[in-house]
Amino acid sequence: MSGARVRTPATHSAFSLDPSGRPAPPWTTREWFGIDHTVQLTDLRGKVVVLHAFQMLCPACVHHGLPQAQRIHATFAAGDVAVVGLHTVFEHHAAMTPVSLQAFLHEYRIRFPVGVDAPSADARDPIPVTMQAYGMQGTPSLMLIDRNGRLRQHAFGAVEDLALGAAIATLIAEDD
Amino acid sequence: MSGARVRTPATHSAFSLDPSGRPAPPWTTREWFGIDHTVQLTDLRGKVVVLHAFQMLCPACVHHGLPQAQRIHATFAAGDVAVVGLHTVFEHHAAMTPVSLQAFLHEYRIRFPVGVDAPSADARDPIPVTMQAYGMQGTPSLMLIDRNGRLRQHAFGAVEDLALGAAIATLIAEDD
Amino acid sequence: MSGARVRTPATHSAFSLDPSGRPAPPWTTREWFGIDHTVQLTDLRGKVVVLHAFQMLCPACVHHGLPQAQRIHATFAAGDVAVVGLHTVFEHHAAMTPVSLQAFLHEYRIRFPVGVDAPSADARDPIPVTMQAYGMQGTPSLMLIDRNGRLRQHAFGAVEDLALGAAIATLIAEDD
Amino acid sequence: MSGARVRTPATHSAFSLDPSGRPAPPWTTREWFGIDHTVQLTDLRGKVVVLHAFQMLCPACVHHGLPQAQRIHATFAAGDVAVVGLHTVFEHHAAMTPVSLQAFLHEYRIRFPVGVDAPSADARDPIPVTMQAYGMQGTPSLMLIDRNGRLRQHAFGAVEDLALGAAIATLIAEDD
Repeated sequence: MSGARVRTPATHSAFSLDPSGRPAPPWTTREWFGIDHTVQLTDLRGKVVVLHAFQMLCPACVHHGLPQAQRIHATFAAGDVAVVGLHTVFEHHAAMTPVSLQAFLHEYRIRFPVGVDAPSADARDPIPVTMQAYGMQGTPSLMLIDRNGRLRQHAFGAVEDLALGAAIATLIAEDD
Repeated sequence: MSGARVRTPATHSAFSLDPSGRPAPPWTTREWFGIDHTVQLTDLRGKVVVLHAFQMLCPACVHHGLPQAQRIHATFAAGDVAVVGLHTVFEHHAAMTPVSLQAFLHEYRIRFPVGVDAPSADARDPIPVTMQAYGMQGTPSLMLIDRNGRLRQHAFGAVEDLALGAAIATLIAEDD
Repeated sequence: MSGARVRTPATHSAFSLDPSGRPAPPWTTREWFGIDHTVQLTDLRGKVVVLHAFQMLCPACVHHGLPQAQRIHATFAAGDVAVVGLHTVFEHHAAMTPVSLQAFLHEYRIRFPVGVDAPSADARDPIPVTMQAYGMQGTPSLMLIDRNGRLRQHAFGAVEDLALGAAIATLIAEDD
Repeated sequence: MSGARVRTPATHSAFSLDPSGRPAPPWTTREWFGIDHTVQLTDLRGKVVVLHAFQMLCPACVHHGLPQAQRIHATFAAGDVAVVGLHTVFEHHAAMTPVSLQAFLHEYRIRFPVGVDAPSADARDPIPVTMQAYGMQGTPSLMLIDRNGRLRQHAFGAVEDLALGAAIATLIAEDD
């Protein structure tokens, strides 16, 4: 069995699976929307996890990242793929509170669960805890975590649907 | 190992892999562009084959199907996936001759090989031979043929990139 | 001289200029962004005014209305056309505060002045004052006010650029 | 009365009306589609004329120019604006014959009349007569001719709908 070797078009950022990957860090969240309990990465073992980090006032997230996450959620079977949103606010903190996020998720009809990344213990550090743990460069960031909890892809910015669909299906096809 | 179970969004036509599939019929062509020899399906055994049937004056082919075939060609490694175009003219025959097709392929910068489907032996039948053999309903039609030459998907009309990337990668991941 | 008679395509809502129009109601705002003073409609007499009413968490405003208002601002000369935004919050009030709006305008790089519509004197009425005065049905709403302060067009929802550019130019071309 | 002064966005080519303009050259055509007689520019005196020059195998014409011409035809009243297509073949002559053009116009549902520009009297010159007379640089080219038959705008390549709608309405609003 061979995984999909995905070639990178010149005009797009590289998008290929890390053959092994490090264990994906756990999530540190402060509340959740769209689900009545805290979602832990370990709860999702056995599924491919698509972790979509965004800010509600980030234009690229609103125009590209979140609609793509919705398409992933609508395309793949829930038994194979879990789509999880993470609100990683690292700027304009007073403008993107959970109250505002809740209205945003309602208006944009986001169907998958969204956790709020926990603020740093250091009050002077604007970067929230999970964003820091994953070393995300900004929003939108997309992370693919395999059935065994390993971080196999981490992309910042726009990713094409065709390559992303291929990457997710390759992880689904892997033996546990 | 499990293949991707692709859920169908309500607004799109079903797109899922046939678990076994019948042997894909051979191609009957009359000339080729973009390559200096006739391409037979049997030459491509071992690769996943994306067969894209189109007409040069079909708006949905020009706006959706051909750009998507170009993206597939640019995204997947040539060792894994062969993209092949088939010009299946079933109407306006005098308007879509090989001379016109050649200029079209040049202007639209089509990079993959394109064969011209052979006219029916029955001069009164407008449907060309390969189109008939596959039972295509019209253009654009997209067919996915696995490494063993079996027809695993046959779609008429628009298909979403995400589901299509997943279907191709699932075929790539299958054991020979 | 004849104004442009704009025909309505079957798939779009009617978009044509009221030949006379009633005087546009004054604006009642509580603060402004992108400008250091309150903008009154009377200050703009002699220019064509494009009043764009929106909510920062309204998807159709973010995807269609605001980008269109930006294009109007970038296309027409400031001496001819004044583009003015109005934040008419009528739902999710706690989520769309001026603090959130300020970050939104920064992130979406809105270049024209935006006023915050004043809340109703009746605390039980969610509709703000100017929205009520104009009888707006929702967001996005687009109003065209002529050089003499008369309301010549009032559209709710999406309007095509071609017809809108024609309507604005027709108002510019009118004698004062 | 002042005409619309249209500012040029940094990312788009200049698009503004020539205040006077030279008389638009007559058209030299060899056949017409979508109408049962030859259309002369002089027949259209009193209307604003939108002349859209294209080639059926030019991707920018198919993706941008022709859909825009269709929108103009659907938006403005026939008594104000005449949209006329001109097939100005200057390359791949054998591929873009009238037979192919007719099927193209049918498939793309072009609703306005289209004339075929006459080949040059000099058989070695690939540029057809009307294209030469107007000094067009390529396809798509868009020309706006006022009610008095003067050429007021001549653009090569993509033009934005908003500015184009404004330019057409400005010409409509001019006194005869």
